[in-house]
Amino acid sequence: MKKHFLVYLFGLNLIFAQNFEVDKSRLLELFENLKTFGVNDNQGNDRVAYSNFDIQAREFIKDKLEKIGANVKTDFAGNLVAMYNPQNSVLKPISFGSHIDAVPNGGHYDGQVGVIASIEVLQSIYDQKIIFNHPLEFLIFSNEEGGVFGSRALAGKINNETLEVKTASGYTNREGVDRLGGNSDRILEVKRNYGDIHAFIEMHIEQGSNLYTEKIDIGIVEGIVGLKWWDVKITGFANHAGTTPMNQRQDAAIAAAKFILMVNETVRSIEGSQVGTVGRMSAMPGVPNVIPGEVNLSLELRDLSADKISSIYNQIVGNTKQIEQETNTSFTFNTIDATGDPALMDKRLMNIIKDISDEFGYSSKVMPSGAGHDAQDMALISPSAMIFVPSKDGISHSPQEFTDIEMIKKGANVLLNTLIKIDNIKIE
Amino acid sequence: MKKHFLVYLFGLNLIFAQNFEVDKSRLLELFENLKTFGVNDNQGNDRVAYSNFDIQAREFIKDKLEKIGANVKTDFAGNLVAMYNPQNSVLKPISFGSHIDAVPNGGHYDGQVGVIASIEVLQSIYDQKIIFNHPLEFLIFSNEEGGVFGSRALAGKINNETLEVKTASGYTNREGVDRLGGNSDRILEVKRNYGDIHAFIEMHIEQGSNLYTEKIDIGIVEGIVGLKWWDVKITGFANHAGTTPMNQRQDAAIAAAKFILMVNETVRSIEGSQVGTVGRMSAMPGVPNVIPGEVNLSLELRDLSADKISSIYNQIVGNTKQIEQETNTSFTFNTIDATGDPALMDKRLMNIIKDISDEFGYSSKVMPSGAGHDAQDMALISPSAMIFVPSKDGISHSPQEFTDIEMIKKGANVLLNTLIKIDNIKIE
Repeated sequence: MKKHFLVYLFGLNLIFAQNFEVDKSRLLELFENLKTFGVNDNQGNDRVAYSNFDIQAREFIKDKLEKIGANVKTDFAGNLVAMYNPQNSVLKPISFGSHIDAVPNGGHYDGQVGVIASIEVLQSIYDQKIIFNHPLEFLIFSNEEGGVFGSRALAGKINNETLEVKTASGYTNREGVDRLGGNSDRILEVKRNYGDIHAFIEMHIEQGSNLYTEKIDIGIVEGIVGLKWWDVKITGFANHAGTTPMNQRQDAAIAAAKFILMVNETVRSIEGSQVGTVGRMSAMPGVPNVIPGEVNLSLELRDLSADKISSIYNQIVGNTKQIEQETNTSFTFNTIDATGDPALMDKRLMNIIKDISDEFGYSSKVMPSGAGHDAQDMALISPSAMIFVPSKDGISHSPQEFTDIEMIKKGANVLLNTLIKIDNIKIE
Repeated sequence: MKKHFLVYLFGLNLIFAQNFEVDKSRLLELFENLKTFGVNDNQGNDRVAYSNFDIQAREFIKDKLEKIGANVKTDFAGNLVAMYNPQNSVLKPISFGSHIDAVPNGGHYDGQVGVIASIEVLQSIYDQKIIFNHPLEFLIFSNEEGGVFGSRALAGKINNETLEVKTASGYTNREGVDRLGGNSDRILEVKRNYGDIHAFIEMHIEQGSNLYTEKIDIGIVEGIVGLKWWDVKITGFANHAGTTPMNQRQDAAIAAAKFILMVNETVRSIEGSQVGTVGRMSAMPGVPNVIPGEVNLSLELRDLSADKISSIYNQIVGNTKQIEQETNTSFTFNTIDATGDPALMDKRLMNIIKDISDEFGYSSKVMPSGAGHDAQDMALISPSAMIFVPSKDGISHSPQEFTDIEMIKKGANVLLNTLIKIDNIKIE
């Protein structure tokens, strides 16, 4: 293995910093191997949580990790937990990881990149005989795409209702966890307390276009935006589309159209990087010859500030009054339980990631994460940080998702050396 | 039975016009009996075409008609055909009828009112020994709500594709027709030619609010509006709702919202009674945290003039260009095969209905029908007319559909005496 030497000049003292590197060809091989579990005819990824692909990919990874002496098990929440502790250290673990589940017909980078980087980091640590004071705990979280399920369980934030939610695989979380080898009846026991973990690091693709557009290697996440979801129900009056004159309609579709445009305008009218989305829509009875009497929409708002989300939401609700009057319909809003609070990343860990990037000569940038991540819930039980690598054109949750292997290698190098540095610092 | 005498003064000659009347209490009893086949917990009507309710209601009606000596059979298209011909006339039949199938959770008046009126008319003819020169043919058309199936078959306008369409009952038209006792393999044989029928009359609720609002007893339909349906597909780009800035989206939902409002404005910007409706909408992938990459809508346009429908459609398609540019999406339009051409009613029959209404002292009004009806296809093979009775508040296709029995009686009186008058005139 090549080593990487850098020379630092502090006043008159010369300090030699030695950085370790991962193996790019091995990373690529791992990527291609993992892709086989779920790749579909569109070159998309159907490895949804709890599917057979999910189960098979975990077996493949478990085999790999056991070969380097890791102790691999599945916790009660279906998280794959690989403990690498050749020194039999009794210190708190340094944890890192991501997820391998995808949205239906998703890409091969979201989650997967952090997982293959983490495995290659462990392989490099093993091969290069890098010694750690702390145990290393590599985590593959269960059902990230269906509401960061595994990490929420670790943070003690799930309940019976969460278990009964039906997921993209068709299985409920309860059924899915048991399929993975977890134990849904004892799932509450996986909860960890703040301080149980030395630090947590997740590497992930950005899923936005900032790094790619600005040609920056490494994103240092300062915080993960909070998100709130609402079900919006619009009630008009279903009537015959042939016999009801245009000026006598209570058309819920017209109200929905005005709402969608109003949400867009409201969110964009305010300074900042908040986003608002209507992603789901359906009309009842939903036939061409009946004026919709009901339309159901989803509303999602995201921002780094929970107060701002709340303020924009209130503005949207206020603006619906006029739509109700104009269209003779009524709106109701119900919060969906998939809400994530904004989470700030640990400043000391962020600084370490910045230093390591600098040492490698990688360009880096401090940025928020617009997407939710397992690190969001891990931040509740541990100092946490995230390393972002660029997403081509910002495309994600799509078969067209892409990150160059060279970029994944850079991220993995930063992850490896960040873990090494964290091992030697005290974090409260 | 009471009889109704009116005195006409033409110049100096006194002419006595004797009008017959139906029995209101028997009409009401028939209404209540027929309602039992399909009434649901909402007081709505689940007697969708081809359902068990449909089959059972036909048995009930068949029994009733055979008791007065009608010859009742089911034709190959599943139409119930009751021939009342005590004189063994060899003239062409005078045909009349409507349908008993409903939309899911529909009302008890759409179709049903014309059917109970027709049965009561036959019962009155039998009881009052009214003699006809022509045979009387009472028709209950199959699957009216699913695209006026039975009358289209009589007009020779169905094909194999129509047979394979899945209907609200879950059965295809082919399966449904066979369930009713038809013969889907020989269905093309039911086609009739123009001239096979002396005249066709359908009594129906208005399904709009004109008669009810203006307190008019009888609507004399001048024509049935044509309708065209399109599938509208909007293609944007599905992307992560958290990481894609508001100004970098290709959001198909925004384009759909602009389209829905534009259709409404375009249709309303033109003088006339044309209507345009977007009744169906769905977003793909249809989850709160993904910007819709595709939205599918239905578009329906109706007017008495096929040219106007075509011109409005072209205007709508033209207006989408701007929406495509504003939202960076693209639109495609595909005609759905449920298109009905506008149909004009026979002026001589309309005049007879007007005269009879006048004789009874019923107020009447010439008006278009915004809804499609079996009479639309019957007009292709026979001089045809429609008698409308008021719909409370114009509500239809809803459990709240309502027409007062007094109004149904008036319609039935007009139907009975219109048939009598038609019997004595020559129609080419």
